[in-house]
Amino acid sequence: MRQNPERRAALLDAAIEVLAREGSRGLTLRAVDKEAGVPTGTASNYFANRAQLLGQILRRTRERLVPDEGVLTGPLDTATLLRDLLARMRRERSVHIAMLELRLEGTRRPELQEELARFQGAELEANVAFHLESGLPGDRTGVVLLYLAMLGLIVDDLTVPELLAPYPVEGLMDAMVERLLPERPEGRPTP
Amino acid sequence: MRQNPERRAALLDAAIEVLAREGSRGLTLRAVDKEAGVPTGTASNYFANRAQLLGQILRRTRERLVPDEGVLTGPLDTATLLRDLLARMRRERSVHIAMLELRLEGTRRPELQEELARFQGAELEANVAFHLESGLPGDRTGVVLLYLAMLGLIVDDLTVPELLAPYPVEGLMDAMVERLLPERPEGRPTP
Repeated sequence: MRQNPERRAALLDAAIEVLAREGSRGLTLRAVDKEAGVPTGTASNYFANRAQLLGQILRRTRERLVPDEGVLTGPLDTATLLRDLLARMRRERSVHIAMLELRLEGTRRPELQEELARFQGAELEANVAFHLESGLPGDRTGVVLLYLAMLGLIVDDLTVPELLAPYPVEGLMDAMVERLLPERPEGRPTP
Repeated sequence: MRQNPERRAALLDAAIEVLAREGSRGLTLRAVDKEAGVPTGTASNYFANRAQLLGQILRRTRERLVPDEGVLTGPLDTATLLRDLLARMRRERSVHIAMLELRLEGTRRPELQEELARFQGAELEANVAFHLESGLPGDRTGVVLLYLAMLGLIVDDLTVPELLAPYPVEGLMDAMVERLLPERPEGRPTP
């Protein structure tokens, strides 16, 4: 397998565009070559097969979704983090649509579903740990609920954006934070 | 176009299975005939084209997801309604996976996305109205947030069910109701 990291990243970005535009059934190594504008056979020098390509796309989506440097430094607050998440999502629609395609393909490929579960499980746990350690208001359950509500919001904003037109998303995000991450839910100490 | 309602429903159910199993690119009138076990050409007697088929699948998904008679009578509480929603989702996985496929296909077909927006928008407004009129605790914003959190939970439960293994979903649903639908959020009267 070839190892030029820039070339590999460019091929994975091309694969993300193919997934987003054509759906998972349109994703072939040949379609990736074509999208990347490289000679036929290039992608097969980088990925042994389609399954390996899918796994590497997963990792590439995370590289593309890392928050900007400035966001995680300085005084933190959850509402600002959510606004940043939504803005990044809207700049990187293809990445999110590709992720939904991978989730659906995972319902048909148990080995992909396992990889998704490991991958997203580690990410959710890291988010929960980050939140609790940062001293932001809210407990573990609240952070998981916030993750679910933001997943729902992102799925709607990606696929049926008109649906939330009567409910400005900034207001929804502020209400999520306020209600799901109370300073001390029901008088219990934050764990 | 033929009008036998049972035959039409059977063809739409076959189309839902094809969508769930093969993804939207696998959905052809011919694949629907094959899945339904009817002679080739039958589906084309019921649906002028694939776009019309997609629109009718949307409506059929709603027929399949109507709550059981008993659920909406007698004393209501939101936590019970959510448990019923989740149980129905798990019995009708194909319907929900087909809906996600339609949402993704909508990102590539503006006329389908418009139909999804009208359809799901009407459903969300009906849910909000039902909730507010029923006298259950919670305001409009809370009901919309509950819809988003349940959408996120359903997407995860369908596509990466292992992810929520550390967080029993019944507990998550109870916490959603408790936090998102307070009796009187912040002392404001429920509208």
